[in-house]
Amino acid sequence: MLLLDVSESSSNPSDDEQKIFQYIDHHQDTFVQSLSEWVAVESDSIQPHLRENITEMVNIAADSLRVLGATVELRNVNAQEPFGQNLSLPPVILAELGNDTEKPTVCFYGHLDVMPAKKEDGWKTDPYTLTERDGKLYGRGTTDNKGPVLAWINAVRAFIALNMTMPVNIKFLLEGMEEAGSPGLEDLLKEEEKGFFSNVTYIVISDNIWLSNKKPALTYGTRGNAGFFVEVECCNKDLHSGSFGGIVHEAMSDLVALLDSLVDSSGRILIPGIYEDVASITDEEMQLYAPIDFNFDEHKANIGVKEFLYKTKDDILLNLWRNPSLSIHGIEGAFSEPGIKTVIPSKVIGKFSIRQVPNMNLTTVQSQVKEHLKNVFSKRNSPNKLTVSMQVGAMPWIANIKDPQYEAARRAIKTVFQQDPDMIRDGSTIPVAKMFEDITKKSVMMFPIGAADDGEHSQNEKINRLNYINGIKVFASFLLEISKLHSASGLMTST
Amino acid sequence: MLLLDVSESSSNPSDDEQKIFQYIDHHQDTFVQSLSEWVAVESDSIQPHLRENITEMVNIAADSLRVLGATVELRNVNAQEPFGQNLSLPPVILAELGNDTEKPTVCFYGHLDVMPAKKEDGWKTDPYTLTERDGKLYGRGTTDNKGPVLAWINAVRAFIALNMTMPVNIKFLLEGMEEAGSPGLEDLLKEEEKGFFSNVTYIVISDNIWLSNKKPALTYGTRGNAGFFVEVECCNKDLHSGSFGGIVHEAMSDLVALLDSLVDSSGRILIPGIYEDVASITDEEMQLYAPIDFNFDEHKANIGVKEFLYKTKDDILLNLWRNPSLSIHGIEGAFSEPGIKTVIPSKVIGKFSIRQVPNMNLTTVQSQVKEHLKNVFSKRNSPNKLTVSMQVGAMPWIANIKDPQYEAARRAIKTVFQQDPDMIRDGSTIPVAKMFEDITKKSVMMFPIGAADDGEHSQNEKINRLNYINGIKVFASFLLEISKLHSASGLMTST
Repeated sequence: MLLLDVSESSSNPSDDEQKIFQYIDHHQDTFVQSLSEWVAVESDSIQPHLRENITEMVNIAADSLRVLGATVELRNVNAQEPFGQNLSLPPVILAELGNDTEKPTVCFYGHLDVMPAKKEDGWKTDPYTLTERDGKLYGRGTTDNKGPVLAWINAVRAFIALNMTMPVNIKFLLEGMEEAGSPGLEDLLKEEEKGFFSNVTYIVISDNIWLSNKKPALTYGTRGNAGFFVEVECCNKDLHSGSFGGIVHEAMSDLVALLDSLVDSSGRILIPGIYEDVASITDEEMQLYAPIDFNFDEHKANIGVKEFLYKTKDDILLNLWRNPSLSIHGIEGAFSEPGIKTVIPSKVIGKFSIRQVPNMNLTTVQSQVKEHLKNVFSKRNSPNKLTVSMQVGAMPWIANIKDPQYEAARRAIKTVFQQDPDMIRDGSTIPVAKMFEDITKKSVMMFPIGAADDGEHSQNEKINRLNYINGIKVFASFLLEISKLHSASGLMTST
Repeated sequence: MLLLDVSESSSNPSDDEQKIFQYIDHHQDTFVQSLSEWVAVESDSIQPHLRENITEMVNIAADSLRVLGATVELRNVNAQEPFGQNLSLPPVILAELGNDTEKPTVCFYGHLDVMPAKKEDGWKTDPYTLTERDGKLYGRGTTDNKGPVLAWINAVRAFIALNMTMPVNIKFLLEGMEEAGSPGLEDLLKEEEKGFFSNVTYIVISDNIWLSNKKPALTYGTRGNAGFFVEVECCNKDLHSGSFGGIVHEAMSDLVALLDSLVDSSGRILIPGIYEDVASITDEEMQLYAPIDFNFDEHKANIGVKEFLYKTKDDILLNLWRNPSLSIHGIEGAFSEPGIKTVIPSKVIGKFSIRQVPNMNLTTVQSQVKEHLKNVFSKRNSPNKLTVSMQVGAMPWIANIKDPQYEAARRAIKTVFQQDPDMIRDGSTIPVAKMFEDITKKSVMMFPIGAADDGEHSQNEKINRLNYINGIKVFASFLLEISKLHSASGLMTST
């Protein structure tokens, strides 16, 4: 652990930063032009017939890195094709620039593929023609994830164009199948733990967005998830409710009672012991919440809810990020179509999941859920068959925000945006951060540059020109800050 | 109301009956041959491209009636085609034989169409080739409803072949779209209330089956049904359970609590007041249950339930036939596919129904359900939107089993089967009996001849040769008994 003096933080750009920022400002249109070229490639990884476009996109990105002087390897991955067709997966880019053992090594992960988009889906402009309106750059992939990937490449480009020494060694891991579940990525990380990753100091992912439309953020945690099936079977075929209603212990009555025992109307999970392992909140952690920019009314209006379960910003964010939650998703095997069908379903499977937070343990949670449901069921004296199983188990991810790269990113943000970032988490499970941390054992940071209203995966996806250009600056500044922190700590530790 | 002396009931066939039964026995193979010809016509009313077969079947049946000397009208109905295609509905047969104002008039209702059947569905024989094995006549429509319709026609044929006076006037109403919901039938009944039905004394329907494989039955009641939708809406679009789980009043939690408030684990409906209007059981009614042939273990094994809600035959039958029951059918709008989807559904609609019995009132039931659900919901302090609606409302049907036609049918059964019938009800809603009664205001009886294991609507549908042949006899005997009862009561009322 490096020792840091947080008071060193400054909002005035250094001379190096000033030169770089000026270069970036002067070349704004060139950077937007590059993004336009990238957006024009329909590198959709969900529609198998567009697979060639991904390979084309990988080649374009590889060329951009080679131009910077990077060594680029196009690595074929050995994984099952997710669409089960006779297709080959696109290669993953493993690139490196600089190999100075005195310098830290920052590895950036990003992806070059996009979700499907068609004008007819409700786009106001052609999704594959970058279109600027009111300072917003519209196009599929602008924020997820081509814009941030190019921001990183352009940040490096600025150093090289200005003939400045790279402050750190840089690595890029860029894949083309993220939206299709990153087939082969996990195995590649395992293979390269002692290879490509051996000298990596920090891993940065810029594949999420801020909590606010205006205020920058750093993401230091995501919730995990434990997904459960609770199955009740009452008979060997669906029955007619006229012919059997009134004499059968119906599977649906049992299931509805089981599901109703999980969470109360205030959102509190009723499974005994479930909160026992949840990490207590510290004053230090609590202080992170006060400055966060979170617009209550905007969030309510956006999804059309009348009231949230909580009335204060702190309670909302605590319950979204660092407390577990239980959601009931639906029932398989019951009647789910429009209209009415007088059926007594024979076998029904309730689906629910519990978002996981530190320090919950998946094995414990699984036992608690099974024990609880068995208890509730046994009180019903039902002769039916109950089966409870955990189908999905993903651990939460939490980073140490005192880690040097978080400090470097804070400083860079302060310099570029003239404000401290919101320190945020994500309520959903982003497996990639946890996967990188678990396999490589390196510090991982999620460093977004897109705004809350960018519309990832949605129609009219955009990145603000300002976010893209400031993103280039903030990444460049981050590399300088990382280097400074390392030199400082190196001096300190050698005295 | 006619006065009846039940002690008159006899199990020895009269001379007329003996002649007729002999004729029927001698012509068994001819009757089976006719059934074979009817089964060969794939008069499937569910698959629109087979519509021509129904018209062919209607013409065959019309010819069979004309041969008996009946006046046959093929009436076009004015109704919406249920499959919304440019098809015309087959005509309905209105036939009559005899117009003696001194005699009662018996009107038989039946249908000539069948449910779809394909060998690949699991039939051991071709469904449209009547195949006899071990005394069972396999084929689509053998029991539902071609066999019973032919049994009626053949019963009349026996009188005519033997040159015997018809003991009653006979009418036939035969349709070809019953399995598709009888489009136009209700309007036809209304039009003919003062026409075709004006001189009808009794209406007989033979479109159901016995409760037992061996013991005959008469059906005197069916339950009605009130089908409800309970809808909860929490937001204007489906949400991701990671991004919103823990801060939203989820519609599914509300709905599961509402559904869990409807019925307890003993099958008792928890809606206040719901049992208030249920008719009390009389000793007389209770006595009908003791002789009923109901094999507990067979019923359990057939549907694969471990235990029923009740331990005695009486409790089972009371709760199936004359008590209300509540079944939860499913949920629309939630995730219902295999696998897991981390969704918070925005709008979910629970579907349930309450079987109706005398003297429940649909308007009262609707109020009770709405009131109850509103109360449960209000205790949750949920800001979500609740909507409760009754989608289906069908009244129960109950006949007076002291009506002369029930007595005549009992006597005919005693003569032909040498045992008293089970007096049964049907737990499900058979709208046709109630519809005939409500519109024509005539006495309606359900007089089945098929056995419990006939497999209506199922693979390997069959009618036992014995049931079919005895069915012809019992219908012939019924006509004689009706006539006798009328003469007897006529004498009595004129003295």
